[in-house]
Amino acid sequence: MIDFGCILSTFTPDQEELGKVKRLSDDLIREISKYCQGHNIKAEPILVGSSSRGTSLKGADIDIFIRFHRSYEIREMERLGLQIGHAVLRNGIEKYAEHPYVSSYEFGQKVDIVPCFIINDASEKLTSVDRTPLHNEYLKKHLSDAQKKEVILLKLFLRRQGIYGSELKTNGFSGYVTELLIVNFGSFLSTLNHLSTLKGNLVIGDPNSVKRFESPVIIIDPTDPIRNAGAAVSLTSLSIFKLSSKAFIKNPSEDYFGMGPIRTPRKNVDRGTKFFLIKFRRPDVVDDIIFPQVQKMISTITRASENLGFRIINWEQFVGEVGDNVEVLLELEYDQLPAMKVHRGPPVDIENALSFIEKHKGEEIFRGPYVKDDRVYAELKNGNTEFLPSLKNILEKADLGRHINKIKGEFIIERYEGKPPESEVTNIFLSRKNPSP
Amino acid sequence: MIDFGCILSTFTPDQEELGKVKRLSDDLIREISKYCQGHNIKAEPILVGSSSRGTSLKGADIDIFIRFHRSYEIREMERLGLQIGHAVLRNGIEKYAEHPYVSSYEFGQKVDIVPCFIINDASEKLTSVDRTPLHNEYLKKHLSDAQKKEVILLKLFLRRQGIYGSELKTNGFSGYVTELLIVNFGSFLSTLNHLSTLKGNLVIGDPNSVKRFESPVIIIDPTDPIRNAGAAVSLTSLSIFKLSSKAFIKNPSEDYFGMGPIRTPRKNVDRGTKFFLIKFRRPDVVDDIIFPQVQKMISTITRASENLGFRIINWEQFVGEVGDNVEVLLELEYDQLPAMKVHRGPPVDIENALSFIEKHKGEEIFRGPYVKDDRVYAELKNGNTEFLPSLKNILEKADLGRHINKIKGEFIIERYEGKPPESEVTNIFLSRKNPSP
Repeated sequence: MIDFGCILSTFTPDQEELGKVKRLSDDLIREISKYCQGHNIKAEPILVGSSSRGTSLKGADIDIFIRFHRSYEIREMERLGLQIGHAVLRNGIEKYAEHPYVSSYEFGQKVDIVPCFIINDASEKLTSVDRTPLHNEYLKKHLSDAQKKEVILLKLFLRRQGIYGSELKTNGFSGYVTELLIVNFGSFLSTLNHLSTLKGNLVIGDPNSVKRFESPVIIIDPTDPIRNAGAAVSLTSLSIFKLSSKAFIKNPSEDYFGMGPIRTPRKNVDRGTKFFLIKFRRPDVVDDIIFPQVQKMISTITRASENLGFRIINWEQFVGEVGDNVEVLLELEYDQLPAMKVHRGPPVDIENALSFIEKHKGEEIFRGPYVKDDRVYAELKNGNTEFLPSLKNILEKADLGRHINKIKGEFIIERYEGKPPESEVTNIFLSRKNPSP
Repeated sequence: MIDFGCILSTFTPDQEELGKVKRLSDDLIREISKYCQGHNIKAEPILVGSSSRGTSLKGADIDIFIRFHRSYEIREMERLGLQIGHAVLRNGIEKYAEHPYVSSYEFGQKVDIVPCFIINDASEKLTSVDRTPLHNEYLKKHLSDAQKKEVILLKLFLRRQGIYGSELKTNGFSGYVTELLIVNFGSFLSTLNHLSTLKGNLVIGDPNSVKRFESPVIIIDPTDPIRNAGAAVSLTSLSIFKLSSKAFIKNPSEDYFGMGPIRTPRKNVDRGTKFFLIKFRRPDVVDDIIFPQVQKMISTITRASENLGFRIINWEQFVGEVGDNVEVLLELEYDQLPAMKVHRGPPVDIENALSFIEKHKGEEIFRGPYVKDDRVYAELKNGNTEFLPSLKNILEKADLGRHINKIKGEFIIERYEGKPPESEVTNIFLSRKNPSP
């Protein structure tokens, strides 16, 4: 038997933390209200997020939204939002999501103060954060006290699998989605039961009611029917959720709950393959910018390499904190191609099939041109038989996104035979294992 | 300007040959009639084939069919057919198509005497050769004298491209199909005009009228609407016909006419690849049996090698006459695989995805198991890293067809680095070129 009570008490805030959060948020709400009254600002603060709903894990953020009257201009709302934030958070720094907000650590507790507009219905929203207080209201109404514990168990389960969080870094299940799953399926176990037998997409709500959604997870936002709350979840994350649900149900264990995955790298042995490590200093930009750029860089490399005949069978990424490195690891079965390449020409039905023939009639080709099935082919001398120079060439020419483009010149590119080098990215590479543990 | 008259006189029978063929066939028809009368056999001989219609090339066969009354049993008809054949062809030998017939060389001219049943309509046919005299009647009615010359030009054009003949060796256009093309398009040039701009399948007649046909060439037999006269034509043969039509129209030349393709092998230079030659004595069976068996052998090797991770990028075959060898040539970019192979497991949605995980949890694997997209993977030790022993193993285990299975033990299998060995199959391999010339 799993001692869920023990799991909950291990990972949820104790009385001391709860007291501190309560005092801190009450104080801030009071101060913000006072500031608004004193400065004639038509806005009111509201505590949102998991700590307002009793579904938070240890050390969760305090999220306070300031809801402005809709008569304000957006720029004015933003300006006043920052002004209030700085007034109440002495050491606040400015951060940017859809618009700027103030963030700080107060007594070791992270606090975000985010301005938005008051709306009663999602259709009235002016900015995407306006919806957050509606989520809060909805969940307060639909989650029973018992279900709040189920939410926490599900969060811990998803975290252990490394699929909790909707940021572009994780492509997983957000806190809000986790809570909607419990509202929909009733409990932690019934959610896992559903996922363990689910085939294909995870769909909650009518995916064609208002707008047609197509993604692995479709969870119609109950506060906004034109939004898919599960849009960020990748196919891999959904598959990991399904498989870990199957594994847990077959063999339940407390090991399936934790703040993060258990990483036990496999031994770094000779695989008989070739490795390439690309290393550079992380540009000073937030996760939601650097992660998609690294992703794009990898898919650019993979596609361009494939076109040259080099097949990348595995890749892995490590994105350090600002100041640290980004590392991309590529694995190839072969990094040297034969002198001859089979060049696939156009289908014979196409007008210029004949020009392909004319072009390759010369003496200097290996074989052909010839027809196979519905196309013409010619076997030519391959000009790029080594991967390392080809990779350098690809990186030089490709658009790798604004921030990475700027530091292309500083890339360190290294080749390794048989096994990858000791490095952060190799640890991640060798740790890849699902489900966890 | 192309001198079509000169081409025709070069490749069609001269007066001497025509005279000889006429005398020979008249004599045989007379003798067969006399034999039937003398032996009370209800059957009558008929000259069919291209030499009966004036569409033959130099040295064409003489085909005489003996049409039996439908009251005969098939076995009896076969027996009498052979009896008559041997009576009129002193040096006749027996051959087998759908049923046995007698074949011989008379004054250097090949003569076949084939028994069949008299029918007035294809729906009455008892054996597939019964239809042949109907083809003869149809073409005699629909081909003008001028069009007969067009048929000959088209035959010479297709022969030059190596796509004339419907046998399993060629998968090309039969004589009958060639004649139907001229009946349909009117002339050699209008046939080429059609093919040069054709996209997709070649269809003559309504492909869905009686029976639904699906193949690259669909030519409804005008004497039998449930038969596709073009069923034997492969996609590659159709594509070669299209492309050579484009080439001829763009740059017409007498070089496009001849009894066979012009083969000018490319130089045998180092391609940086690996070659494997499989050589064995041709079993004593006809082309229509050995060719499909060699084909099947090659596709078995290709598929099984692919499953082991070895990709065969090119193959070629040489099938000598009986007494000579069969040679199969395989080309691979790499014949050695890394120690590690990425083993693709089942989709996570499938019941036994979890057994895959359990099975590969052990210490001895390289990496994983892990989830990617909708599947599980594990990276394992590859047990077959060398192609040569894998190939031997594949050949040992596979069913290669009755006649090849018997002589498996005599296979000679050789490996070559960089370029293929001097051999018949290498000549074919290096000659592959379309269009020809």
